[in-house]
Amino acid sequence: MGPLAKENLAALDAHWRAANYLSVGQIYLMSNPLLSEPLRPEHIKPRLLGHWGTSPGLNLVHTHLNRVIRERDLAALCVWGPGHGGPAVLANSWIEGSYTQTYPAVSRDAEGMERLFRQFSFPGGVPSHVAPETPGSIHEGGELGYSLAHAYGAAFDNPDLLVACVIGDGEAETGPLAGSWHSNKFLDPVHDGAVLPILHLNGYKIANPTVLSRLPDAELDSLLKGYGHEPLYVAGDDPLSVHQAMAEVMDEALDRIASVQRAARGGGTHSRHRWPVIVLRTPKGWTGPGFVDGKPVENTWRAHQVPLSGVRDNPEHLRQLEEWLRSYRPEELFDADGAPTADVLACVPEGERRLGATRHANGGVLSRPLPLPPLERFAVPVDGPGATLHEPTRVAGELLAQVMADTARRRDFRVVGPDETESNRLGALYEATGKAWQDRTLDTDEHLARDGRVMEVLSEHLCQGWLEGYTLTGRHGLFSCYEAFVHIVDSMVNQHIKWLKTSRSLPWRAPVPSLNYLLTSHVWRQDHNGFSHQDPGFVDHVLNKSPDVVRVYLPPDANTLLSVTEHVLASHDYVNVVVAGKQPCFDWLSLEDARAHCARGAGVWEWAGTDDGTRDPDVVLACAGDVPTQEILAAAGLLRELLPDLAVRVVNVVDIARLMPRGEHPHGMADPEFDALFTPDRPVIFAYHGYPWLIHRLAYRRTGHANLHVRGYKEAGTTTTPFDMVVRNDLDRYRLVMDVIDRVPGLAVRATAVRQKMADARSRHHDWIREHGTDLPEVADWTWPHATG
Amino acid sequence: MGPLAKENLAALDAHWRAANYLSVGQIYLMSNPLLSEPLRPEHIKPRLLGHWGTSPGLNLVHTHLNRVIRERDLAALCVWGPGHGGPAVLANSWIEGSYTQTYPAVSRDAEGMERLFRQFSFPGGVPSHVAPETPGSIHEGGELGYSLAHAYGAAFDNPDLLVACVIGDGEAETGPLAGSWHSNKFLDPVHDGAVLPILHLNGYKIANPTVLSRLPDAELDSLLKGYGHEPLYVAGDDPLSVHQAMAEVMDEALDRIASVQRAARGGGTHSRHRWPVIVLRTPKGWTGPGFVDGKPVENTWRAHQVPLSGVRDNPEHLRQLEEWLRSYRPEELFDADGAPTADVLACVPEGERRLGATRHANGGVLSRPLPLPPLERFAVPVDGPGATLHEPTRVAGELLAQVMADTARRRDFRVVGPDETESNRLGALYEATGKAWQDRTLDTDEHLARDGRVMEVLSEHLCQGWLEGYTLTGRHGLFSCYEAFVHIVDSMVNQHIKWLKTSRSLPWRAPVPSLNYLLTSHVWRQDHNGFSHQDPGFVDHVLNKSPDVVRVYLPPDANTLLSVTEHVLASHDYVNVVVAGKQPCFDWLSLEDARAHCARGAGVWEWAGTDDGTRDPDVVLACAGDVPTQEILAAAGLLRELLPDLAVRVVNVVDIARLMPRGEHPHGMADPEFDALFTPDRPVIFAYHGYPWLIHRLAYRRTGHANLHVRGYKEAGTTTTPFDMVVRNDLDRYRLVMDVIDRVPGLAVRATAVRQKMADARSRHHDWIREHGTDLPEVADWTWPHATG
Repeated sequence: MGPLAKENLAALDAHWRAANYLSVGQIYLMSNPLLSEPLRPEHIKPRLLGHWGTSPGLNLVHTHLNRVIRERDLAALCVWGPGHGGPAVLANSWIEGSYTQTYPAVSRDAEGMERLFRQFSFPGGVPSHVAPETPGSIHEGGELGYSLAHAYGAAFDNPDLLVACVIGDGEAETGPLAGSWHSNKFLDPVHDGAVLPILHLNGYKIANPTVLSRLPDAELDSLLKGYGHEPLYVAGDDPLSVHQAMAEVMDEALDRIASVQRAARGGGTHSRHRWPVIVLRTPKGWTGPGFVDGKPVENTWRAHQVPLSGVRDNPEHLRQLEEWLRSYRPEELFDADGAPTADVLACVPEGERRLGATRHANGGVLSRPLPLPPLERFAVPVDGPGATLHEPTRVAGELLAQVMADTARRRDFRVVGPDETESNRLGALYEATGKAWQDRTLDTDEHLARDGRVMEVLSEHLCQGWLEGYTLTGRHGLFSCYEAFVHIVDSMVNQHIKWLKTSRSLPWRAPVPSLNYLLTSHVWRQDHNGFSHQDPGFVDHVLNKSPDVVRVYLPPDANTLLSVTEHVLASHDYVNVVVAGKQPCFDWLSLEDARAHCARGAGVWEWAGTDDGTRDPDVVLACAGDVPTQEILAAAGLLRELLPDLAVRVVNVVDIARLMPRGEHPHGMADPEFDALFTPDRPVIFAYHGYPWLIHRLAYRRTGHANLHVRGYKEAGTTTTPFDMVVRNDLDRYRLVMDVIDRVPGLAVRATAVRQKMADARSRHHDWIREHGTDLPEVADWTWPHATG
Repeated sequence: MGPLAKENLAALDAHWRAANYLSVGQIYLMSNPLLSEPLRPEHIKPRLLGHWGTSPGLNLVHTHLNRVIRERDLAALCVWGPGHGGPAVLANSWIEGSYTQTYPAVSRDAEGMERLFRQFSFPGGVPSHVAPETPGSIHEGGELGYSLAHAYGAAFDNPDLLVACVIGDGEAETGPLAGSWHSNKFLDPVHDGAVLPILHLNGYKIANPTVLSRLPDAELDSLLKGYGHEPLYVAGDDPLSVHQAMAEVMDEALDRIASVQRAARGGGTHSRHRWPVIVLRTPKGWTGPGFVDGKPVENTWRAHQVPLSGVRDNPEHLRQLEEWLRSYRPEELFDADGAPTADVLACVPEGERRLGATRHANGGVLSRPLPLPPLERFAVPVDGPGATLHEPTRVAGELLAQVMADTARRRDFRVVGPDETESNRLGALYEATGKAWQDRTLDTDEHLARDGRVMEVLSEHLCQGWLEGYTLTGRHGLFSCYEAFVHIVDSMVNQHIKWLKTSRSLPWRAPVPSLNYLLTSHVWRQDHNGFSHQDPGFVDHVLNKSPDVVRVYLPPDANTLLSVTEHVLASHDYVNVVVAGKQPCFDWLSLEDARAHCARGAGVWEWAGTDDGTRDPDVVLACAGDVPTQEILAAAGLLRELLPDLAVRVVNVVDIARLMPRGEHPHGMADPEFDALFTPDRPVIFAYHGYPWLIHRLAYRRTGHANLHVRGYKEAGTTTTPFDMVVRNDLDRYRLVMDVIDRVPGLAVRATAVRQKMADARSRHHDWIREHGTDLPEVADWTWPHATG
């Protein structure tokens, strides 16, 4: 028994059977989609690909979400964690018509059904997982672990949205997913929507039972309550009983959610609420073949992918497949033209209420440009280069705070970070909003707020996952992170870049706000935390990915950081990586100059050089990144003083992709421009923020590449002083001057004394720091001596 | 009240106070270590660095571990999750004498104490975190999340070892740590040691309260029970009461552990046991300054790092510091010479029982060479190149199975993988051992075993963390992983490489077995899973790291994989990355040839070329990786047939670091060798497994670099056929032939027809796959036509 009247039950079951039938059809069939004739080998695909095991469970969830969405007129989005069950989600989209609406060629009739089947996991067709191509999706199901974080990201600041999230028991074993459960401590029932996790325990991974499915019931219950949820259970293998139980539990879950929201929004209650979680325990590969070749398949790991193999050549398997397909009674589910029958469609919602048609899953259509205030309000005054110092991230923090303030009502901007917002000197944000926090607070706490839009949790995975979900649903944000530890999300950013790359090729997907990183507390200024905190390799990592999506900026001072920040916040469909320091840094450029310089992405700093812009330089000193820029300028200063007749050109690069060939990145310079900037034939000493070979890998095709000598971080890290970090890695001013002397033809002989002076300075440095523990006064107190004022 | 007699309590407290005193001393003092005179500014370090907040808690744990280790004569190791609390662990090591034993200059007297203080976070001194330099450590505390996984790794196959693991409440928020709790489902109480997690809730991260510390008590209790633990609680801020409670709980925990082990080892019980976890709730920065400049510090996030700043210049802070230091009554703790008093030393264990002296933390001294059987038993017979096909990983699996069998009694070899061991075709392992599993089993399960040494869990983080802990304690192992998803542990492998790099510079650290990756299910054969599963960038990632530690191998067939596997299993102190396919692959080399080829790392395959080894080739076809090798050979075959007078040299590279300059990697070739292999002036068409620019970044300094043309993966991925993957990325045989024609001077004109034929073949391919969904028969059925037999 249960809440469903007999006819509703029958209709729901018809919907579910139809989705199951279509799931099997996608895996196996390339023709004869309605089984209008007996199944023959030539109807079968030559390669059998796809994941059956999870599909019937996903279909069950979709069917029952349909029911409650329709009955309660809900705005809902579903994140399908077991997204490798692509056939299920595609089947449902086709049934409800959102698939045909998106891809008219795949019509809701027999011909379209054949197309749906054939295209699945077929060259030129659609991927085997839920993917950007899938209507209604914001989550690729290939790499497991991020579904729940994505769901929360989608729910933040969407108070009227229900985000269901199916979590497979395989995915539940991953660290990121295990950590994601605590997201409920950051969800504000007033300003955010609801997340309904549905933990699907079908018992098996590819080749093993799952941990959670084998826990004793009491332990599982304890775990979920420990996560702050109220578990509701559905279990069984008899479809009609499971439908009743699922309907009952789904109603209860939604009633609870509504009650939590009512209570919170009525202003009555202030303790954190216990949100429901549904635990759905059904057999893996449910309703599929029970045994194949004498071995149990249904309800074992053998049902994970394709339960019946070699169907073209194995008549018994072919027979079993036909029996399996016919077990769903397709003749009751599709009319003579192949369209779903009224029974099947009875539970399907209308229009944008359909899960495959929700605009939240195509967030670009809902997105509004971020209000960006004039930078003049935040710019630091620069009368001459190098005359003053500012902390760049603190200056950018003022801009972010203003954006936060200006979106107070719209609530479509968030800043995430792993407990580092203040440490990264973005504390100005707290003048505009608080830090999201739903649990109890103490008198000594500062800035905690239920409705805060700064998100602080000591999990880079959660920061990344939340922000992905938030931006894919059309909102804006920024992830501020210690540079070294952003590698924690290497794999997640890979997947997000792949998502964006594919999305850009789909005309129906509107551009979404970019995912923006502000990487600070960077390699050169983690001298106090030591080697574990020193790693500039994220730039290398992302530059391996699609150049259409990836942008990397290394602003050398406060005003350039402002300009870059404005640019990335206004952009769409990119992953923008901004690397900038938080320590006091010389101000080199006025806002006007900074804007011009950032727009070019790379350019000559004439005030810093001695080549007068008129004659060919003897050497080019190039730099990218704030600390390398400082060292290059210090080297340029030394050269002015010690070798005054040397013609030195100073080039600064903000947009690192400018170095790439034009055909390899949209920002790549044409060769003549590159040659004009760096010269085709003069030595170029390039001080780079990260691994030096990256510059070679970007520039190896350039005319003057053989003259390019790059200094950067080469894993010589430890706990030491800031200047010792650059000395250890041969990026210091003295070493750079020696490089110039060694590389400019004829200079070595002439400048022997200068070279020795530089070597002496390095020795003095070594002695000094071991004695005093601080940098040489001449380094610590250095300023650019040639300010033109 | 509690279990401690008055004098024991006093002695324990003295130990704890001494450790606290020494922790503060390290952060602040550079002289006057015993406060033998009033504190003056010049006694204070010029830069104040370190983490005070967690230190008193770590000191408490260390004190109480000392007590039980001594009382029960335990062999114990402790993993300090909040390892940024370096001062605490160093303080304890100094007190117990293990520090002086390791570093005699830091003697256990006033002079040594001054050295201990001064060297901390000082240039030329020691890092601010627990690090390889720290006696007794296997875990760097900089990047949070991996302590519990390391602890389990250390405990596996160490039945007599207790591994305590302090988990900070900050770290507990990370995904990897949250997932690690389920490690207890994989720990066999018979063959493995015990892990005692100590969750330290001191309430705050850098700038925020922690999630777990603010959970309602019942929710926290439920969570830990849900993780399968029996929680035991200690809370308070009165030292003497906390000592009593801690002693009582520590005894209870160890009694429980002993009872679980007795029961399991007596053979009586077969259900999974509920292991204890200690929850320790003490104030952050406990016993430190309560208020500074009017703001609360103790028991707030402000106590995280250095509670009193600017002590040299701020007399009030200087006064507070002196008061704070004197509050520990140093005159009771250290004798006139500065050595710890008898009271302080009363709880300290002897010899290797000391946590800073356990040999398990210097696992190399316990490690035995792995027994490696003769490869002849597993080699595939190769009468001539390309005549037969084998699945390389399946062949290597037989070798791994034999190693597993041969270590059945020693139990010092494990294979970890995220549910992919069978999928990666290493199933032969199950003839030698089972899959570790402690929970209930069903009749349909296969290969699950309490004492299994294959570890399968759907968490790359756990696989990595377990194996790190296992190898750092001297045992051997291999991590088999889908190539794309190993990026999930990018950041972990970074930290492990840093650990090994530093360890190698410490004479007292014995080499530990290498961390070995077998990356399979690689980019070229994830055509069925699609874009999310296609990523060859891990090689790029690790090659940014220390060349002393990193090795990368791309064996092109089964016998070369055997040879490489043998090599990496026998090696120490490396991170070895082996990339090899699991799909049927042509056998190119006999075992003898494979051994010789792998020993060289790169070499000419004379049988594949047409340059007779005597004259200069017109073109070099180079390859690295199994699929690129196949395409290069197919291209070589086409060239023989279509342009028979072209002199083609075929070069295969197994050890990718051979391409690097000699000074940049120990395996790098000298320039003359490189020139001899690749020629200084002929076109080189290089088919590489991964991102093509990696080859340029390795080889940009070589003489003939301008002639090098690399093909590889360029993010053109999707769900398609295997051959279409190479076509999409321009790595296919037809494209390679076209590259040859385009690059060999004068050939373009002569070979117009051949070039057109190649272009036609690519068109035919495109049409065919869209029609049939499978590869062209001429490709699918291709074999090397020139087998010499």
